[in-house]
Amino acid sequence: MIIIMNAPTEEQINRILSKLVVNNLEAKTIAIQDKIMITASGGAEARHTELYSRMPGVERVVAVSTPFKLVSREFCADNTLVHVGGSITFGGKNIPVIAGPCAVESYEQVRQTAAAVKDAGAVMLRGGAFKPRTSPYSFQGLEQDGLEILSAVGRETGMPVITELTDPRLLDSVDQHVDMIQIGARNMQNYPLLKEVARSKKPILLKRGAASTIEEWLMAAEYIMSGGNDQIVLCERGIRTFETYTRNTFDVSAVALARHLSHLPVIADPSHGTGNWRLVTPVAKAAVAAGADGLIIEVHPCPEEAMSDGPQSLNPVNFSQLMKETSEVAKAIGRKLGETWYE
Amino acid sequence: MIIIMNAPTEEQINRILSKLVVNNLEAKTIAIQDKIMITASGGAEARHTELYSRMPGVERVVAVSTPFKLVSREFCADNTLVHVGGSITFGGKNIPVIAGPCAVESYEQVRQTAAAVKDAGAVMLRGGAFKPRTSPYSFQGLEQDGLEILSAVGRETGMPVITELTDPRLLDSVDQHVDMIQIGARNMQNYPLLKEVARSKKPILLKRGAASTIEEWLMAAEYIMSGGNDQIVLCERGIRTFETYTRNTFDVSAVALARHLSHLPVIADPSHGTGNWRLVTPVAKAAVAAGADGLIIEVHPCPEEAMSDGPQSLNPVNFSQLMKETSEVAKAIGRKLGETWYE
Amino acid sequence: MIIIMNAPTEEQINRILSKLVVNNLEAKTIAIQDKIMITASGGAEARHTELYSRMPGVERVVAVSTPFKLVSREFCADNTLVHVGGSITFGGKNIPVIAGPCAVESYEQVRQTAAAVKDAGAVMLRGGAFKPRTSPYSFQGLEQDGLEILSAVGRETGMPVITELTDPRLLDSVDQHVDMIQIGARNMQNYPLLKEVARSKKPILLKRGAASTIEEWLMAAEYIMSGGNDQIVLCERGIRTFETYTRNTFDVSAVALARHLSHLPVIADPSHGTGNWRLVTPVAKAAVAAGADGLIIEVHPCPEEAMSDGPQSLNPVNFSQLMKETSEVAKAIGRKLGETWYE
Amino acid sequence: MIIIMNAPTEEQINRILSKLVVNNLEAKTIAIQDKIMITASGGAEARHTELYSRMPGVERVVAVSTPFKLVSREFCADNTLVHVGGSITFGGKNIPVIAGPCAVESYEQVRQTAAAVKDAGAVMLRGGAFKPRTSPYSFQGLEQDGLEILSAVGRETGMPVITELTDPRLLDSVDQHVDMIQIGARNMQNYPLLKEVARSKKPILLKRGAASTIEEWLMAAEYIMSGGNDQIVLCERGIRTFETYTRNTFDVSAVALARHLSHLPVIADPSHGTGNWRLVTPVAKAAVAAGADGLIIEVHPCPEEAMSDGPQSLNPVNFSQLMKETSEVAKAIGRKLGETWYE
Repeated sequence: MIIIMNAPTEEQINRILSKLVVNNLEAKTIAIQDKIMITASGGAEARHTELYSRMPGVERVVAVSTPFKLVSREFCADNTLVHVGGSITFGGKNIPVIAGPCAVESYEQVRQTAAAVKDAGAVMLRGGAFKPRTSPYSFQGLEQDGLEILSAVGRETGMPVITELTDPRLLDSVDQHVDMIQIGARNMQNYPLLKEVARSKKPILLKRGAASTIEEWLMAAEYIMSGGNDQIVLCERGIRTFETYTRNTFDVSAVALARHLSHLPVIADPSHGTGNWRLVTPVAKAAVAAGADGLIIEVHPCPEEAMSDGPQSLNPVNFSQLMKETSEVAKAIGRKLGETWYE
Repeated sequence: MIIIMNAPTEEQINRILSKLVVNNLEAKTIAIQDKIMITASGGAEARHTELYSRMPGVERVVAVSTPFKLVSREFCADNTLVHVGGSITFGGKNIPVIAGPCAVESYEQVRQTAAAVKDAGAVMLRGGAFKPRTSPYSFQGLEQDGLEILSAVGRETGMPVITELTDPRLLDSVDQHVDMIQIGARNMQNYPLLKEVARSKKPILLKRGAASTIEEWLMAAEYIMSGGNDQIVLCERGIRTFETYTRNTFDVSAVALARHLSHLPVIADPSHGTGNWRLVTPVAKAAVAAGADGLIIEVHPCPEEAMSDGPQSLNPVNFSQLMKETSEVAKAIGRKLGETWYE
Repeated sequence: MIIIMNAPTEEQINRILSKLVVNNLEAKTIAIQDKIMITASGGAEARHTELYSRMPGVERVVAVSTPFKLVSREFCADNTLVHVGGSITFGGKNIPVIAGPCAVESYEQVRQTAAAVKDAGAVMLRGGAFKPRTSPYSFQGLEQDGLEILSAVGRETGMPVITELTDPRLLDSVDQHVDMIQIGARNMQNYPLLKEVARSKKPILLKRGAASTIEEWLMAAEYIMSGGNDQIVLCERGIRTFETYTRNTFDVSAVALARHLSHLPVIADPSHGTGNWRLVTPVAKAAVAAGADGLIIEVHPCPEEAMSDGPQSLNPVNFSQLMKETSEVAKAIGRKLGETWYE
Repeated sequence: MIIIMNAPTEEQINRILSKLVVNNLEAKTIAIQDKIMITASGGAEARHTELYSRMPGVERVVAVSTPFKLVSREFCADNTLVHVGGSITFGGKNIPVIAGPCAVESYEQVRQTAAAVKDAGAVMLRGGAFKPRTSPYSFQGLEQDGLEILSAVGRETGMPVITELTDPRLLDSVDQHVDMIQIGARNMQNYPLLKEVARSKKPILLKRGAASTIEEWLMAAEYIMSGGNDQIVLCERGIRTFETYTRNTFDVSAVALARHLSHLPVIADPSHGTGNWRLVTPVAKAAVAAGADGLIIEVHPCPEEAMSDGPQSLNPVNFSQLMKETSEVAKAIGRKLGETWYE
């Protein structure tokens, strides 16, 4: 770190230097005009930047190293490949597409959606059993029954399944029913939950929080990776801005940036990213063009009857069109939408 | 709700009207130029606005009623009084001040802080035992030991204590050690946690999420209140904006607005609200002037040694000055800072 | 508009109804539970929504029609084609690329850049003569000399040129030197400037303000179009968010949305949109995949010597690569990057 | 500045060092682990940070000095006093209140408002003659006639007047009719306008842009001050955030922070800051408690008839109440609302 002091007294400088000695940090000092700069190396930087910034005479402290370690490209230059369900790989040349309803509503609804999305080229099935909803009066999901429906349809169609985990107490139950566990945007900084999924052997889909910086997102991944689970797929799903036409603003540059900063695969969720079914296909194509390693799309057999997220869900015809158009974009950048396992 | 259709076909209108009949909603139709407006009453509006917005011909659906019910002023015109520890009341004429360290670091640190803040007029003691930290490598709190230290110092000084709960599995343990339970900003939409504290008999301090609208904040309170616990204090603690000089932007209008929309007490956290100790006192005074029913302030005997949040912590001398200056503002609006129990 | 009243008195309702009569608006009234809804048609809605929202008993007023008229798809279903310099068309199947330095620094610099970008497939040349800079101590542009350099290089290379106008007093001077006039993000709501360029016969490139909603952006275009100039190209260039890794957050969904709401062409500026040269190519590809009708890219012969915007400028080699990769994406969606005029 | 390089090659380091020599900057080099840090002093930092950040091997460049000079506390430790109309001083112990209608609508309306606000303790009159409106179809102000009405009422009531300037071509006309010139939020980065008012002898009220950082706001003031006019009053008027209940989020900490960073007076505009008349009084009190050196309030004799900004305007009774309540807060912090000249 670099400690920048503004016209400090000699005593203030000495106080910093003594403290650095106590903390076992090696210091060097440079004067620029009225400012004194002290560089210090060794130790955990995150901890020290905060401490020193409060000392008398200090203007600010600049961190030199990135706070994320294990998830960084510096730690691992090659792309990490994340394998799901024995047949799917995120992070390679292929671009897997996950599709399915926002919420599991019934066996029939999931089965019908699964058949349709598989037919259009999706390789993995999503469906919410425990739904985090803004209102306590909204549909909260079928819970355990939802898990079982999802799992059953996954087996029947041969598609690996993913669902969101919102409660650390439910890890074991969710773990045994699904092939991949989703941490939703609202829980990106739910640390007990992150620590819990770090214990799982299943791969984790980590959505970016709606108001989280890319750095905070990578730090959340660092929680999971430092806890022992390195099978993590990052998912950009739109951030909260002042714009009101869209539910969120899909941050397409974050896809490229996260792939630059980290070795983990990065996929895109244009359904939540826009909140508007009309925008899902153009944003899906944009995300793939920017380098996304996968897509997750909300599809409902009849969006106008959906129990949640109807406005952003595609119907099977829309989804099929999305797959067709996005395939062309994938080819244009030398990749392939979908996986080969189902062929 | 009002369904606004743009130049719909007759068939599209009929489809809406039939669906409203099926959903047992009473409909009335009005034409304005090219637009057709259908008002519908009865049923849970939140659920229906989403459903109808996706139907063909519909431009958008406007909700007419507020989504929060139990926490709204319409439900209860009088201010709710929240009682903590037998001696403190939030929502009345007095303005209680909660103070203490960000994190419990040791018995000595808490005891020393407690003595200092009590001396300056604080009536309640805060201290984090389970710390949600952005980095897995930062200090995570003393956990169970921290709870016990906090509880012991509370008893010794006669101050009720509050700590943050981050994990639903820890409710019982936290519940028996503290007088009030805090739900932090990162967990404002952690619904399993909200449902869990709704079961507690202890009053809840519900912080606004850093990227949560006032409506979402009140909906989170609705989760707790509809779950059976109506002893809720709201806490504004700054929102995330583009400004980088401050850690958060303290939304002073939210204090006045939340008191207008809800009967629950609203307090202010200028420490997190600004992230900068120099701004804590002016913002504390501003919050009280705007009508805040309490304050929660981070105080550390030696902020430059603090294991977390040093940059925004006051030392005892700063805090004493804050109390003195804010007292005058409280008097100017006909209220009184602090409580009488300790006099 | 719809006036929503919450449990109004009869007198409050009558006051509204009388006022509507005075304003020559036709009213219809509906009751839903405690609420009274009054729909009113005729007249300028923008004006009235504000007026009525302040009357006693009124909870809020909902506008029914969009505030933009001439620029809306409802006004004109077909894409508007904007022609520049006799050879270039925005809004058709082809996707013209504008490139050049942030600021005109010297004849040699512009000539060299122009040759390089033309060679790579750009069809139009950009260059700032009057630079809006955050600091009064930063380079402010070569002003009149810059205009003349840009114009000369445009003639020599046969490329139409565009520059930014920041001062209404300079319209005539800028107008005679360039083929297209740019209104920058900081001036999107500089109404005297918008009214001034509405008088020009030259096509206008209207950048979205960094903190402007899509609606405000379209309203700014409405100023120009209602003032008599319908040759407008919209340009998404990133919005201000809490994210700090990037200078702005490029809103890729705005490209698709503006094309859906308006008949005007929409192009993308990934240079300002990201502020980071590494992200320019992925975001350019994303914008084209989402439907952008053109690109504007900052290129400098030696970005590390650039007098402004060096960090986001491409060098000629990067730019050539961008053109190559983005061409493939354009083909994948059935369009063609660049124009044919220079072939 | 400090140039941070990540594992650079020797050649990359040498290239930086040579360039620093060419630029006449003095360099010192320090290694911390894999990183090389080069500090450089001398020259205009703003210009160089950008240049060096793009060079090979450079991770980022950290500016050491603040970019604003003349407006900074470092330049002038004492509060600047800004005198308006011979009778009013901003920046001293007294807190002047400016009040009046959003827009000048008629002589009668302004006269009536002026009498009412003067009676309640306002010392200065505001009124818009040239209105920047989002829609070209909204009322654009009475323009020249509005200026004359405002000026006439000012003379009759003995109140200095202020109006907004939006067009550099109108400076002379506005200058001769008013005692203080306002630069509105939308024009905070309209540099030709800033340079123009720097030539005026009249004091300037500089509103913060709705999406401008505090640093950008101070840089805009630097434009005016470096251009020769040091009579500047800063005005916080709310920033754009994701919150939709309020028109803007009033940033109360910015009042305290701007006074800490700069010697210029800082006043508050709670009318635009909230957009909701119910919140104007609590936020006015908050701003004064946080240290505001003045207030500017929209008052209309009949807000529900106002031609603009009705929803946020106070009527004379509300305003009188605001003055009464805010006076008490001012006294509590040892200041006095209003000036003595009219007594």
